[in-house]
Amino acid sequence: MAGPAGSRHHRRPARAGAAGHVARRTGLVLDPYFSAPKLRWLRDHVTRDGVVTTLDTWLVHRLCGAFVTDVSTAGRSMLTTLDDATAWDPDLLDLLGLDDEELPAIVASDDVVGTTDVFGPRVPVTGLVVDQQAALLAQGCWDAGTVKCTFGTGAFLLAQTGTDPVRSSSGLTTSPAWRLRDETRFCVDGQVYTAASAVDWLAGLGVLGSAGEVDRVAADDAAGVQFVPALTGLAAPWWQPGATASLTGLRLGTGRGEVVRAVVEGVAASVAHLLEAVRRDGAPVASLRVDGGLTRSRVLVQALADRAQVPVEVHPSAHATPLGAAAAARLGLDQALTPAEALPRVVPSHVVLPTWSHDRAATEQQRWHDAAALVARTERTEHP
Amino acid sequence: MAGPAGSRHHRRPARAGAAGHVARRTGLVLDPYFSAPKLRWLRDHVTRDGVVTTLDTWLVHRLCGAFVTDVSTAGRSMLTTLDDATAWDPDLLDLLGLDDEELPAIVASDDVVGTTDVFGPRVPVTGLVVDQQAALLAQGCWDAGTVKCTFGTGAFLLAQTGTDPVRSSSGLTTSPAWRLRDETRFCVDGQVYTAASAVDWLAGLGVLGSAGEVDRVAADDAAGVQFVPALTGLAAPWWQPGATASLTGLRLGTGRGEVVRAVVEGVAASVAHLLEAVRRDGAPVASLRVDGGLTRSRVLVQALADRAQVPVEVHPSAHATPLGAAAAARLGLDQALTPAEALPRVVPSHVVLPTWSHDRAATEQQRWHDAAALVARTERTEHP
Repeated sequence: MAGPAGSRHHRRPARAGAAGHVARRTGLVLDPYFSAPKLRWLRDHVTRDGVVTTLDTWLVHRLCGAFVTDVSTAGRSMLTTLDDATAWDPDLLDLLGLDDEELPAIVASDDVVGTTDVFGPRVPVTGLVVDQQAALLAQGCWDAGTVKCTFGTGAFLLAQTGTDPVRSSSGLTTSPAWRLRDETRFCVDGQVYTAASAVDWLAGLGVLGSAGEVDRVAADDAAGVQFVPALTGLAAPWWQPGATASLTGLRLGTGRGEVVRAVVEGVAASVAHLLEAVRRDGAPVASLRVDGGLTRSRVLVQALADRAQVPVEVHPSAHATPLGAAAAARLGLDQALTPAEALPRVVPSHVVLPTWSHDRAATEQQRWHDAAALVARTERTEHP
Repeated sequence: MAGPAGSRHHRRPARAGAAGHVARRTGLVLDPYFSAPKLRWLRDHVTRDGVVTTLDTWLVHRLCGAFVTDVSTAGRSMLTTLDDATAWDPDLLDLLGLDDEELPAIVASDDVVGTTDVFGPRVPVTGLVVDQQAALLAQGCWDAGTVKCTFGTGAFLLAQTGTDPVRSSSGLTTSPAWRLRDETRFCVDGQVYTAASAVDWLAGLGVLGSAGEVDRVAADDAAGVQFVPALTGLAAPWWQPGATASLTGLRLGTGRGEVVRAVVEGVAASVAHLLEAVRRDGAPVASLRVDGGLTRSRVLVQALADRAQVPVEVHPSAHATPLGAAAAARLGLDQALTPAEALPRVVPSHVVLPTWSHDRAATEQQRWHDAAALVARTERTEHP
């Protein structure tokens, strides 16, 4: 976007030892996944000119001229604190060498930030919220302890924690879920970078004709094959951006059915591992609500129920995320609505129950975890 | 074959701690790869009746009625010693609980053991030798220190050690190569159970249209992907029959070209690792002679030269093994011939030189070794 560049000096990267400090204050992990390290990198390597900001701010500015971001987006920047999610934190800005940046105002998800006529008649601009938090809203996760996972290219698991920003001791991150009706709700979250993209990757290798064939091709059992879906690194709770994926336990009798099954099981195991972290942090998880394209795979959903040992409720729409943003926008337009009224009641298209015993789930998750721990431990070595 | 069953009692398996004793006396490793543990298993689980023996003995008996095996075959049974390769060893027979077995006479590879008319005119039966030892003969490996590797479904590397049975301290095994003209020659050997079968396995997964496409599909570089070809366990120098194969270092950008390349490099790395063991045992390896179907892949042969850091000489025939047996048979038929005269001089179809520096080869071999060590360490766990 256009805008005056704050004059700034080239700074050294964040101080060593700062990671713990940043984690305690922001709820996040010092990892390139979040915005501030990217911003820092752009300033160090690309340009010191102009304004560098997140995509929502640029888009809203193009729509109506406002220079804003919302609480949930700012909460993923690593530049706000869980204690005051509505303001940029001077200490964090200084730590990351970003105190000369021009920063947008932080608004609530139901604030009307302007009007636009780019779609035809002039309409208000409102309903700003991060994609995964929007899906949490769309899944009707109003109560602390309710959990959803969206399966897009990656898989994103979020658990509502209410108005209390519960700090994870299990490697998950904590962020504002949204700010609506002057109240900030929080969530803990973890992610698997490659879910549908792991299936697409298999199709690219020729193991699968297309992603839609998963349920037809997958064997009943992976026959000992393990897949750790770290094709673009490992996120929570490992935080190893340089990790790579592995297929292990391969035998001469391993066919495409076993490999496809292992990939689906590996994605399910990763998500179940995140849900276990949510449980360890104290949330009484009663069910898991899922949405996104990959939830059309009954094999995946069953594997998830089996490994996570909870009923899995499948959202009726493959597009829950925009429904959540639309709900936030309705709240922006009609101050009389409550959040619960802004969305129709969510009725799952179907609910899948675990078929594995608790012992089998524990054993299988331990096997997958052993494979993942190897991947997390192996340092990435660049090829000459 | 027909034959009276020796009366025998069911015995407990070989005494614990016997492995070192067996290795010192036989040159072999107490592993189900060799004949005696298989024979022991058949007696324990299948039948105590009849005669159980190796395929060569059965076949020769069908051809001419003789009940024999040759020094090289007996040397892979774990029931003869390196000190006396021409006789069954009573101590080993007792140790393995096989002292009541009816055993064939041990002959030389150039002994005429009978005549047969099953192919038409009556001809002598001679030229008994193990397949890999036959290939060693066909490759003209007369001198101590000469080495060949045959690439069939598996890859089998043998190094001639002359009349001295050199004991390996690097996990290789030592066996009689052949007995010709009243002189027993020895060799050390190691094997990769899956070479061409690993390529066929990839084709079965859909990653490759057919095994013949390897050189067309393989990328120039595996881009960090490592393959450990333990699809049916790990042989020398690991001796982990329960190990399974792994594909590691996978990224979203990893395509079939990188996977095919990694599989070929993994096979080459395994063989180079065996050759390094031969070197560590003291053999001054000047070149590596190769034969078998997979040597038609220039990508494989180049990878082998690069990783093993020796010139690789490709045998002109894809079928060196029967040429070696034929040479032994010629020696059986014509007592005036010397072994060198029994085979035409071997002129390689081409010789491939290393293009990698020694440092690069060492680095790449270390990376592969790290991946293999993980596979060797991981215990096989049966799926429930």
